[in-house]
Amino acid sequence: MNYVLAVVTHFNGGSREVVVKARGRSISRAVDVAEIVRARFIPDAEVRDVRIATEKVTAEDGRATNVSAIEIVLSK
Amino acid sequence: MNYVLAVVTHFNGGSREVVVKARGRSISRAVDVAEIVRARFIPDAEVRDVRIATEKVTAEDGRATNVSAIEIVLSK
Repeated sequence: MNYVLAVVTHFNGGSREVVVKARGRSISRAVDVAEIVRARFIPDAEVRDVRIATEKVTAEDGRATNVSAIEIVLSK
Repeated sequence: MNYVLAVVTHFNGGSREVVVKARGRSISRAVDVAEIVRARFIPDAEVRDVRIATEKVTAEDGRATNVSAIEIVLSK
């Protein structure tokens, strides 16, 4: 709920657009956040775009690995 | 990799469009599948649309609950 609150705070502070980003297994949580914001708090917010991508990250052992990423653009 | 293989098989069988769907915590895996298909197997496939939604499901104890869902439309 902390991320939901953060998005709602941005909109209530006057932002017209908020982008929710996540990587890896947190991607499903980003979708939850966007959906909860729309369903419960900001009904006139709409999902304007959803982008998916692959990002390179360096693991603790120094090896490069790929991780999926998502960006959900909410606007009202 | 089974889902990647399934998508690649559809494209190689002549499909112009494949939709990858997932719900809940599998959403991140759906993004992985779409990204791996594009990066390694079908370079000319593009993400034509990504839709997110909330679906109602009934838990084992009979209670209704909400779950986030994603649909990734791949086309070439």
